[in-house]
Amino acid sequence: MKIALAQINTTVGDFEGNSRLILAALEAAEAASARLLVLPELALCGYPPLDLLTRPAFISATEAALAELAARTRGTYMLVGFAERVEAETGLGLYNAAALLGEGRVLAVRRKSLLPTYDVFDEARYFDAYRGDYAPIEIDGLKLGVTICEDIWNDRVFWPKRRYDCDPVEALAAAGAQAIINLSASPYHMGKPALRQEMLAAAARRHGLPVVYCNLVGGNDELIFEGGSMVLDAAGQVIARARRFDAAQIYADLFDEGAASAPLVPCEERIDDTREALLLGLRDYCRKCGFSRVVLGLSGGIDSAVVAALAVEALGAEAVVGVGMPSHYSSEGSVTDARALAENLGIEFHVLPIADAYQAVAGTLAPLFAGTEEGVAEENIQARLRGMLLMAHTNKFGGLLLTTGNKSELAVGYCTLYGDMSGGLAVISDLPKGLVYKLAHHLNRHREVIPVSTLTKPPSAELRPDQLDADSLPDYDVLDDLLVRYVEHSQPRAEIIAAGYAPALVDDIIRKVDRNEYKRRQAAPGLRVTAKAFGIGRRIPIAQRFSG
Amino acid sequence: MKIALAQINTTVGDFEGNSRLILAALEAAEAASARLLVLPELALCGYPPLDLLTRPAFISATEAALAELAARTRGTYMLVGFAERVEAETGLGLYNAAALLGEGRVLAVRRKSLLPTYDVFDEARYFDAYRGDYAPIEIDGLKLGVTICEDIWNDRVFWPKRRYDCDPVEALAAAGAQAIINLSASPYHMGKPALRQEMLAAAARRHGLPVVYCNLVGGNDELIFEGGSMVLDAAGQVIARARRFDAAQIYADLFDEGAASAPLVPCEERIDDTREALLLGLRDYCRKCGFSRVVLGLSGGIDSAVVAALAVEALGAEAVVGVGMPSHYSSEGSVTDARALAENLGIEFHVLPIADAYQAVAGTLAPLFAGTEEGVAEENIQARLRGMLLMAHTNKFGGLLLTTGNKSELAVGYCTLYGDMSGGLAVISDLPKGLVYKLAHHLNRHREVIPVSTLTKPPSAELRPDQLDADSLPDYDVLDDLLVRYVEHSQPRAEIIAAGYAPALVDDIIRKVDRNEYKRRQAAPGLRVTAKAFGIGRRIPIAQRFSG
Repeated sequence: MKIALAQINTTVGDFEGNSRLILAALEAAEAASARLLVLPELALCGYPPLDLLTRPAFISATEAALAELAARTRGTYMLVGFAERVEAETGLGLYNAAALLGEGRVLAVRRKSLLPTYDVFDEARYFDAYRGDYAPIEIDGLKLGVTICEDIWNDRVFWPKRRYDCDPVEALAAAGAQAIINLSASPYHMGKPALRQEMLAAAARRHGLPVVYCNLVGGNDELIFEGGSMVLDAAGQVIARARRFDAAQIYADLFDEGAASAPLVPCEERIDDTREALLLGLRDYCRKCGFSRVVLGLSGGIDSAVVAALAVEALGAEAVVGVGMPSHYSSEGSVTDARALAENLGIEFHVLPIADAYQAVAGTLAPLFAGTEEGVAEENIQARLRGMLLMAHTNKFGGLLLTTGNKSELAVGYCTLYGDMSGGLAVISDLPKGLVYKLAHHLNRHREVIPVSTLTKPPSAELRPDQLDADSLPDYDVLDDLLVRYVEHSQPRAEIIAAGYAPALVDDIIRKVDRNEYKRRQAAPGLRVTAKAFGIGRRIPIAQRFSG
Repeated sequence: MKIALAQINTTVGDFEGNSRLILAALEAAEAASARLLVLPELALCGYPPLDLLTRPAFISATEAALAELAARTRGTYMLVGFAERVEAETGLGLYNAAALLGEGRVLAVRRKSLLPTYDVFDEARYFDAYRGDYAPIEIDGLKLGVTICEDIWNDRVFWPKRRYDCDPVEALAAAGAQAIINLSASPYHMGKPALRQEMLAAAARRHGLPVVYCNLVGGNDELIFEGGSMVLDAAGQVIARARRFDAAQIYADLFDEGAASAPLVPCEERIDDTREALLLGLRDYCRKCGFSRVVLGLSGGIDSAVVAALAVEALGAEAVVGVGMPSHYSSEGSVTDARALAENLGIEFHVLPIADAYQAVAGTLAPLFAGTEEGVAEENIQARLRGMLLMAHTNKFGGLLLTTGNKSELAVGYCTLYGDMSGGLAVISDLPKGLVYKLAHHLNRHREVIPVSTLTKPPSAELRPDQLDADSLPDYDVLDDLLVRYVEHSQPRAEIIAAGYAPALVDDIIRKVDRNEYKRRQAAPGLRVTAKAFGIGRRIPIAQRFSG
């Protein structure tokens, strides 16, 4: 049986556009004489639709789009993810479902059993969990077990501790499935590709069944879906694999025993994955929100340089505007490095000194501030003037302002709300500072895009004379490790100290992380590349007293 | 059996403080010779703890605090809400539970069955749903059915369409319960008190059992818990009722048939409830975050006047600082009305004109903006300068900046990100403009606090000459009704038009609501008083195309 997998790049709520992508995939599958086309989870409405799922009109639009798609099918069947509305005793029910379309109609529907409710997922908010019998669908006498995303992530052998007391794959195998199909919208984070591949191979081997895994691709707000769809044979070897971070359509003959297969190669996390993920996330956010241009402040520092380089790669040099905004505290390198970067990248570059505006604001505040010492208030005015100038640029000429802060800063609040935090998308806010350096060197792998002086000078916010990040924060390798422990792994204070850190340092960092929740609550959405990003997947109260 | 209900005002994660409140309630109950003290849901850790529940140290702290409380109990028992960690086959399990403490130990534990996952609730993210047998606890031979919040909100007679296929109250009644106890953390919104009272009375009557309902009180970020605990007899009549919007401890004799009871009086929604809710939310946010002072901009308009009046009532005049920031476009009334308000309220008041700073910023941008027409960019600079001056004040002198925007503006994006949206707490961002007027008149009920001219002049942002809100928006009564339909009730476009609105107007408003999701994503947390507020209870993707 020839199967096609289409990892398409959907837009949430764009039923017309998504249907167009699905029909194009169907036409290609028909031309290739495939018997079955598999599409990602919720392909019809895009993922994640969030509370749009609670709008009756959204579900009605889904039903209409599904009916149109079904009418269009003939001998090449397709499995497409959609939100299925049912009348239930307990009011209106909704399933995260897969429809088998063929011969001009809906031939079968299968429903998702396991609804993730951790991290960025809230599926129990929207969907009912299917808990009925498990019956494979049948095509040409072949029994195919249809699962949706999380359904395949709960194998009791692979996971010593499971999340759910139900294993749809096992149930389908027991019900005679001859292959397992999985429609996914499984977001990228570092380490996930390797885990996913191992998990799929283990499932194939344990049940002795081929696995067809079709994953979504594309950026949707914070989330980046990498694609990487694959087909594994019953021995857990890959017989077809789609590229990652881009739309693709691949084919495999499921039961051809002579098919060429390749053993799994260890899927190592490479810095280039991070680059590709960020490019996709940035490009798609702009495209799906309708921005053809981005603006960002260039400080001469490494964060803004990395974001500028990514923006040029994602959108083209003509779509990127850099603005240098030196103050009386800016180093000479600030503008020269920013200008060198802009020249290397070939982007529009403006210099807007903030001295005059700063003096005017300081003058306005002088009657109130008389007799006080310069401090964080004055530092923040500088950062906020820069945010204001950048927003004025986008308000006047259009375009999306990118924020350039990294995860280490955001974690400890080493950033100014309404200042450098201004912007519509935070491109590297899930990258610890150490990783920003690594990515910067990687971006320079072919030629010097980011000036060497930007890479070598000590990090500074340049908001007061001779200020260095190191005055306020531990070295970034120390800080980043502490943050991975506390934020990413929820390690208790005592365990972090037991790992060899001074209690005073640990307490200081924990306090900084906890106290700056209010800033992060108002931060721009940030592209997620780690297992635990700030944003929708991490929800901490602001008014709270726990620290440990 | 004499029962005490303590509606305490907990702080999330403050195990020491919450335990102190619980012990004080216990001592009072002991002094009153109560046999049983009932406390709210998750009283030990505060509500809602959100992702703190995923930190092992948080659960360990819960366990330690519970053990300490248990050790302290003697003959007066207590039922206290806590998060119960259990070892489960599927990894670590967590229940939203109630512990019966007495005689120095934990006598019994009961677990929540129904986990809300709609609106502001994400309980399935954290807790397992209990689905075992239902056994009442027994004290002095009396069988008491213990339920937790949502457990009592699923009666199949009261709700024609139920959310869950399980009714713990019915199950406990069938198991011989002689009374139903409910530990709650049920947040306030308009209309909820009446609904809650009717629902509790219906439950009492249907099962012929007394109902003991102990609700949390206090503000926790966006959520306001009103208290209003009550005891109803088997006929659904109230035999004890706690005040609302404040901590309280009440007593009732559950099985004293001669107890005085009062029939339910219809619980009408009054504007004073809104006032009290906002006062509690504002006061608690400040107290729980450690702010003793608030700052806000006073424009002479109604929104900032209402927020200032509320702040003075919540925190005292000496804790409130008002700042007028007139521009070249400000009406004369702007400063005179703001000053009159400040005088009426007796608060510190400063005037910081923004003309010089505006000229300096405009001058800085002049080379870039040459040849363009004044527009939204220039308007936003004014709003952002004001935000900057206010933030500078709090950065210099401490205190919390309050934002003063209303729900109607926030819905359609008639507000400036990093400008008037700057601040740590949005006091009236869930009040439609019409309700702001109603509240303003109510605040003036004893004397003219808010100047009459503020109440009577047409609303204006004063960001360009002779600007009026009515230039950009329909009348607020029309706008507010459209927003209730679209935002609060998710009414489809076609239905709104069928209600008599012009299609072009409906489309314009829907488009404005949808397109401004990015602003709301970065808005300050806002106190919730309606059934559907912007904030954690409403999650819409930014990059999406659905409109309908």
